[in-house]
Amino acid sequence: MQVFPVDFQPAGRRVKIEAGQTILAAAQKVGLQLGEGGLAAPCGGRGLCGHCRVKVVTGAAGEPTAVERGFLKPEELQQGYRLACQAVVQGPLKVDIPTESLLGVQELQVEGLEVGVVPEPLVARYTVPLSRTTIDNPRPLWQQVAAELGTKIGAGQVRVDPNLARDEEPLADESAAVVTVRSEEVINIYRRQPVPPPLGLAVDLGTTKIAGFLLNLETGALLAASGLMNPQIAYGEDVMARLAYALEGDADYEAIRQVELEGLNNLASALAAKAGVEPTAIEEVVIAGNTAMHHLLLKLPVAQLARAPYVAALTTPLEVKARSLGLNFAPGAVVYFLPVIAGFVGGDHVAMILASRIDRPAKFTLGLDIGTNTEIGLSYNGKMLSCSCASGPAFEGAHIAQGMRAVSGAISAVRLSDDGNEVFWQSIAGAPPLGICGSGVLDAIAELYRCGILNAGGRLDTSHPRVRRPLGGGPPEFLLVPSEQAGIDSDLVVTQKDISEIQLAKAAIASGTSLLLEAAGLELNDLEEIVVAGAFGTHLRLESAIGIGMFPNLPLDKFRQVGNAAGTGACLTLLSASERRRAEAIARQVGYIELMNQQSFNDVFITSLMLP
Amino acid sequence: MQVFPVDFQPAGRRVKIEAGQTILAAAQKVGLQLGEGGLAAPCGGRGLCGHCRVKVVTGAAGEPTAVERGFLKPEELQQGYRLACQAVVQGPLKVDIPTESLLGVQELQVEGLEVGVVPEPLVARYTVPLSRTTIDNPRPLWQQVAAELGTKIGAGQVRVDPNLARDEEPLADESAAVVTVRSEEVINIYRRQPVPPPLGLAVDLGTTKIAGFLLNLETGALLAASGLMNPQIAYGEDVMARLAYALEGDADYEAIRQVELEGLNNLASALAAKAGVEPTAIEEVVIAGNTAMHHLLLKLPVAQLARAPYVAALTTPLEVKARSLGLNFAPGAVVYFLPVIAGFVGGDHVAMILASRIDRPAKFTLGLDIGTNTEIGLSYNGKMLSCSCASGPAFEGAHIAQGMRAVSGAISAVRLSDDGNEVFWQSIAGAPPLGICGSGVLDAIAELYRCGILNAGGRLDTSHPRVRRPLGGGPPEFLLVPSEQAGIDSDLVVTQKDISEIQLAKAAIASGTSLLLEAAGLELNDLEEIVVAGAFGTHLRLESAIGIGMFPNLPLDKFRQVGNAAGTGACLTLLSASERRRAEAIARQVGYIELMNQQSFNDVFITSLMLP
Repeated sequence: MQVFPVDFQPAGRRVKIEAGQTILAAAQKVGLQLGEGGLAAPCGGRGLCGHCRVKVVTGAAGEPTAVERGFLKPEELQQGYRLACQAVVQGPLKVDIPTESLLGVQELQVEGLEVGVVPEPLVARYTVPLSRTTIDNPRPLWQQVAAELGTKIGAGQVRVDPNLARDEEPLADESAAVVTVRSEEVINIYRRQPVPPPLGLAVDLGTTKIAGFLLNLETGALLAASGLMNPQIAYGEDVMARLAYALEGDADYEAIRQVELEGLNNLASALAAKAGVEPTAIEEVVIAGNTAMHHLLLKLPVAQLARAPYVAALTTPLEVKARSLGLNFAPGAVVYFLPVIAGFVGGDHVAMILASRIDRPAKFTLGLDIGTNTEIGLSYNGKMLSCSCASGPAFEGAHIAQGMRAVSGAISAVRLSDDGNEVFWQSIAGAPPLGICGSGVLDAIAELYRCGILNAGGRLDTSHPRVRRPLGGGPPEFLLVPSEQAGIDSDLVVTQKDISEIQLAKAAIASGTSLLLEAAGLELNDLEEIVVAGAFGTHLRLESAIGIGMFPNLPLDKFRQVGNAAGTGACLTLLSASERRRAEAIARQVGYIELMNQQSFNDVFITSLMLP
Repeated sequence: MQVFPVDFQPAGRRVKIEAGQTILAAAQKVGLQLGEGGLAAPCGGRGLCGHCRVKVVTGAAGEPTAVERGFLKPEELQQGYRLACQAVVQGPLKVDIPTESLLGVQELQVEGLEVGVVPEPLVARYTVPLSRTTIDNPRPLWQQVAAELGTKIGAGQVRVDPNLARDEEPLADESAAVVTVRSEEVINIYRRQPVPPPLGLAVDLGTTKIAGFLLNLETGALLAASGLMNPQIAYGEDVMARLAYALEGDADYEAIRQVELEGLNNLASALAAKAGVEPTAIEEVVIAGNTAMHHLLLKLPVAQLARAPYVAALTTPLEVKARSLGLNFAPGAVVYFLPVIAGFVGGDHVAMILASRIDRPAKFTLGLDIGTNTEIGLSYNGKMLSCSCASGPAFEGAHIAQGMRAVSGAISAVRLSDDGNEVFWQSIAGAPPLGICGSGVLDAIAELYRCGILNAGGRLDTSHPRVRRPLGGGPPEFLLVPSEQAGIDSDLVVTQKDISEIQLAKAAIASGTSLLLEAAGLELNDLEEIVVAGAFGTHLRLESAIGIGMFPNLPLDKFRQVGNAAGTGACLTLLSASERRRAEAIARQVGYIELMNQQSFNDVFITSLMLP
């Protein structure tokens, strides 16, 4: 049977697949997730949902099926749009995955810590009486507003944001209006009903994911939470690729920045729609971003961020008018950027420390926020030290043969019988398994080691009945779920390469922990608490993480899994000026350790590759 | 002899002139001022200076002379550029007057009041020690600056303007730097010598003129002062024409705004060059603008400014980043806009009141700032009232047959013998007279009335030997200077139409004064002081202004002529935060009287047309 290459854009993945297979099968083979909610979801590739839209740029993919003619308009078909579950490979293909198919707005991990906070917002609301502007009463709107506010917040201090004044009809025609004031400046006005409460948006801006939280600034109530994939992924999966893109020239920098802005505007629109308001009702924004995302959004210099010693251009907190950035919120809304600590320790880490309260000097605490980069913070004796380690995207399901994100159909937990002959697994939402997410891979490898099927060097025991060579030859793999039980037409396996990926990730995290303790002059047993943050960190099985040596071997009751603490920290600083000051104090206080500068780094890293 | 029409663009003036006359003669006939320093100056149209460049768009203007071939490049000649003093009218012409010929940067009235002020600038300078950013010291520039400043202005308060951070190399490579801080934000940095002092720019932004003052913010020293014609003149001489232009659509609004921005950037560059610095050394800017100029620069809504009751969109003071407006100063420089009072009483009036100190409740004071619009302020019993009257551009030399601005060659003072047969005149710089400026016209008309050559209705006595009918017929005119004594080839005269123009102007000012007093319940004799501001107001002869009834008939020692008080006021608010607060208090305190709303306006105005 003939085999043809299929190139997927903009992901840059290539796969060879037999003629007659669907484009969806090709995408699955290469780990691409199409359609809302993940791989060919929600219909499982049965042609029922129409979500797996792709565009065939060059090559033959058969005639459109009746299903496609039902979901796609004639002009779309003419432009090459197809449903990946219907179009079949009949020759070499170049396939474009539209952003909406790859990156649809979807629920991510957004639950956070429950942290008590008394709302102390930076904006305040006032209702001001007005009288109609006429020849006899020639006082325009803002003059009346300023005079009224003057009696409340001090005469002579009142300003009006010029963008707001540009947008509004200057003559008063109403008997009252509601205004929002920030630092003595009027930043928004409601001249008729309905008047939504003052709303704020907190954003955890990561390389892969953007999580957003819409809050009532007066009550602190969470009105909506949502996440989306950072659309900048189209410009490179990791930070370095994106920095390299931005460094190619001003137009490229602006392009990659616009994509991020668009993502933020879309996220805000989606959140506002959930809450039944307009995005222009958002009057204050906080962004807790990793340093690269922070710099790219602000268009700060990034050359120095892309080479040793990976230095941030600007670490201080910032207040910028949303409009001046290109964000469509209330006319005078301010975006507050949490301070960053270093090139790879950003505002998200500050927010994580804030939310998990590990800055409190009472305990010796280690805080880990696991992501493509894992930031680790250590609090001891009233001091704080942080470092960053490149743990890679394996825990997000990337670079894992059958990896996928933690969405419906992902195997999220694995146990083996002691002899390893029986596999017990759980999938998210109980759906037929389509792939394995981070916690599932971690479990599988920890269990393989526990059962002796994997040695300390990470090699599979090829004599075990479930360990086999793949069909076309190559390194061995462990059969997790045979195709009969899977939601896809192939066996689900853990490959030798998957194990290496996890070894690299766990070695990065373990060496960071070890070197941070060394720099502080502490021993493992000095640690009284280990806080684990992030979506993956919250859902992983601690026994597995300890089992492969990713986390220190300490009693389980010392661990605290806290969810998206960075998001929670962003919410805290959105709601409270005191929390904002506290976050800034954290950023100034934290000492940064550059792991690459530690003489023992290479030794420690290589040792840490061993299991556990 | 044949007569042809000549159309001047963009001024929109048309004149009919005999074949063989120069374009310069045509321009003079229609009152246009070409060349630096005024009408055909400095050479008087003798082909010596090359300043009267115009562009012949259509029509025949003879072959270029040797003089023109000397001053103009071949490609310029090919494009139609000519010297107005050389090119002769040989048919109907359309002539474009390039901005540089009409509006060249030149010295205007910039001297102001001497007002004592203790500099209390809004920016502060700090020298911060730095150490080189290296692998072993990975602290970037701004982190070091913020840490150093934190010890001086309070930890946790330091911000860096994002534009500044965008512009600067983020790695430190020096042992110290000088930074400028405003409201806890770093807005400028000097990383190598020379380090200019902190500089500020104060601007009096008028419809016709823009005056700029460059000051040392620490010492208060005036480093340079300059003025230029507002280049927006190309879009209309008066405020209404410019508003109409802006209202034609967003692109038109943006175009007229860009021209004003360009004017401000050019003014700043000229001032900086005089002081031997770059415009980017300007770290704080104050703009005292009339309301229309203020709105057009900020792109605020202006529809309501162009129709009764002529309401300002925004009257409150504003702070805007210069970069966000399009002004090229220090990266983080702030532009402070003085508050405005009403549609035709702007920040320049506030600045005038501030500088002339008429807000002090000790005296009953009237303050007049004479321009195309004349603003009048009245201070009494601790209260203030202001109004605006449309006095027109006659005192700027416009709409006067042989009017010109107050530059070299303008007749600035006139006396008559009691019988009116002898005329004594002075010209600016003692140059041969080329035309008459505002103070000269005012003098001439006052003297004509004093000598009985003009009656109270403003009619010339046609039996007087110097009163004659013009050559082509029409209303009578008074011969001021015969052509033999003039610097141009025609007699200098005062026409019946000139007298009407001045009557209208004086009636506007007198009615404003009268109605303001009426609104306050005061009599003329209650006034203890009359402050007269503005270039024309400072140079006019009080006796003449009183003689025609433009100013109230009060003892001369009650008058105080204070120069460009608006400019001085702008300087005061630039130098001192206290003065800024005081200006804002003035703006809030002043009550505004709309003359059109006063029932007695028409009666008073018509009565005021009479001399005196």
